[in-house]
Amino acid sequence: MQVKSIQWKEDHLLLLDQRKLPKQTIYFKIQTLQEVIQAIKNMVVRGAPAIAIAGMYGLVLYLKSLKQKPSWNEVLLQLENLKESRPTAVNLRLSIEKFLHVFETQWENLSYLELTNQVEKFAIEEENIDIQTNLKISQNGTNLFGNPKTLNLITYCNTGAIATAGIGTALGIIRELHKRNFFVTVYVLETRPYHQGSRLTTWELMEENIPCYLLCDNMAAWLMQHKKIDAVIVGADRIAMNGDTANKIGTYSLSISALAHNVPFFVAASQTSFDFTIESGNLIQIEMRSEEEITRNSFIRNENNEIIYSEGILAPIGVKVLNPAFDVTPAQNITAIITEKGIIQPVNKETIQKTIT
Amino acid sequence: MQVKSIQWKEDHLLLLDQRKLPKQTIYFKIQTLQEVIQAIKNMVVRGAPAIAIAGMYGLVLYLKSLKQKPSWNEVLLQLENLKESRPTAVNLRLSIEKFLHVFETQWENLSYLELTNQVEKFAIEEENIDIQTNLKISQNGTNLFGNPKTLNLITYCNTGAIATAGIGTALGIIRELHKRNFFVTVYVLETRPYHQGSRLTTWELMEENIPCYLLCDNMAAWLMQHKKIDAVIVGADRIAMNGDTANKIGTYSLSISALAHNVPFFVAASQTSFDFTIESGNLIQIEMRSEEEITRNSFIRNENNEIIYSEGILAPIGVKVLNPAFDVTPAQNITAIITEKGIIQPVNKETIQKTIT
Repeated sequence: MQVKSIQWKEDHLLLLDQRKLPKQTIYFKIQTLQEVIQAIKNMVVRGAPAIAIAGMYGLVLYLKSLKQKPSWNEVLLQLENLKESRPTAVNLRLSIEKFLHVFETQWENLSYLELTNQVEKFAIEEENIDIQTNLKISQNGTNLFGNPKTLNLITYCNTGAIATAGIGTALGIIRELHKRNFFVTVYVLETRPYHQGSRLTTWELMEENIPCYLLCDNMAAWLMQHKKIDAVIVGADRIAMNGDTANKIGTYSLSISALAHNVPFFVAASQTSFDFTIESGNLIQIEMRSEEEITRNSFIRNENNEIIYSEGILAPIGVKVLNPAFDVTPAQNITAIITEKGIIQPVNKETIQKTIT
Repeated sequence: MQVKSIQWKEDHLLLLDQRKLPKQTIYFKIQTLQEVIQAIKNMVVRGAPAIAIAGMYGLVLYLKSLKQKPSWNEVLLQLENLKESRPTAVNLRLSIEKFLHVFETQWENLSYLELTNQVEKFAIEEENIDIQTNLKISQNGTNLFGNPKTLNLITYCNTGAIATAGIGTALGIIRELHKRNFFVTVYVLETRPYHQGSRLTTWELMEENIPCYLLCDNMAAWLMQHKKIDAVIVGADRIAMNGDTANKIGTYSLSISALAHNVPFFVAASQTSFDFTIESGNLIQIEMRSEEEITRNSFIRNENNEIIYSEGILAPIGVKVLNPAFDVTPAQNITAIITEKGIIQPVNKETIQKTIT
């Protein structure tokens, strides 16, 4: 059965605690906006679309906790707090901007009850849009593969139901292929250093009985050399105007191996991932993360996302580390970008503009 | 100071316990052949040349523990036990064959004392040959780079002083470059799943104050995209007649990234790594290893190398895993093979036969 990581229950929100996977499947009961903000900061919820939707439900909880309508300035203050819970998450920023656009002008005119109802409808609508977006991406992606057949696919990181409100992007396509009776086998790369592939993606696939194998990231080229791989399907963090795609570190390396073995390399992403303020990938800033993620077996972060405890030594104390969080795959390594608006192929500025506008 | 992982002390042998690195630097005091065999089985000592030399000193300890000359048949029995301590280690097999060749005919004619002395000389000579081989490889490799300059190098797995009796193969070249006043910075890839890069190679480099950075394996392509990398230098487990090279899993992927970025890709290996019974790399059998190496943070093996304890869950219980121990890099991805006999460039059957015979 497909996992539902965000569950709205009208007076509270249930969030699947992703930090505990795959050891335990625990849902957090969230009753206030403050708790939503903490859950985002503490990585209970991750994945840009999932964070945005959790945030919108947080605003509903905020209004419901009050006895009367707050001033617009008070709302702006809450929105600011919410936005700062994960400053780099583009979808959260977009949802907040949409919220401002929808409610700013009518805040004075509507009653407390009307507003509370409308904000709840807005949050549910945002969730539905994400679910529908995932579905359309998965259908467009599945159509690329024609009639049901045996497919060996490689995927990377986690782009599934626990990163979104729906069935996921790259993993959504894999789900849809399986549903439409393709004989899918998924080769999941573990995704160092955070292990989203081994901890989260294999877990999602196993929950739905989709056959899968786990490998280390450095085994992808060996796999392509030894097995007929039909496609690599990955997600995207941000896509520049020319199609250069920032995604989890290791995606670029995987695209090079795919190219060398003539394996189609697909990116699955919604239109919200496109950033038309950025001409090409070399303008995308790459976040460098902490050394402990690479030098320690496990660690615990505090609510400011600082590592406060670590154990298991994988490297000498004091070793210098480079830990880029993502890399940029150039457009020419990407066979097609699969969006809810259609397939972008070949990938360049013109085909992107034709599809996404 | 350069670490010396095998230290012969006439009535005993000191072996650096590589399982404890980088947490602790502990030497095992070995007094019998049986203890040498256990140390090989238990992975106290690893690296094909190091295993062979430890084995030869084990034979000296065996003779010294006796009061009189053993029969040749008794010696053959001990050699058989020794060989089975690590059946795939080619250098150990070669050293045992050399021992048979040297001592079989003269065993009857020499006295107990003469034989003990000669076997000790033989073991020391084997160690010296490995030290000299490492030195020649490192000098040949260093000459490739011309006059001292700034060099950014990527290396993989561990090919250093703790895998050999000398300064190492790929890491020996890096040591020699540093010694000859090149401004070397080494980018060490962690080498999943066993972490030989992060645990052993960074440790060796830091011991000698050679500047280094640790990265995950999936970051190599990003590194080549962002930094001028002058060369990749790796070791070899086995080289086929045509130059196809089996080495630690991930080497092949690294060679593809190097090719895509026009980075020279060097293999450092002694002539004992060449297997002239194998025409090309696709005939090399690839060993598949245990799932726990990938799905668990840490584990303990018993003396038969079976995992008896593991902890830290990186993947769901029951997930299927592919864990190939090495892969094959085709000759056309290799810029040159650096041996003690000279540089093989370009890499093909003819250039190999010209250099190695």
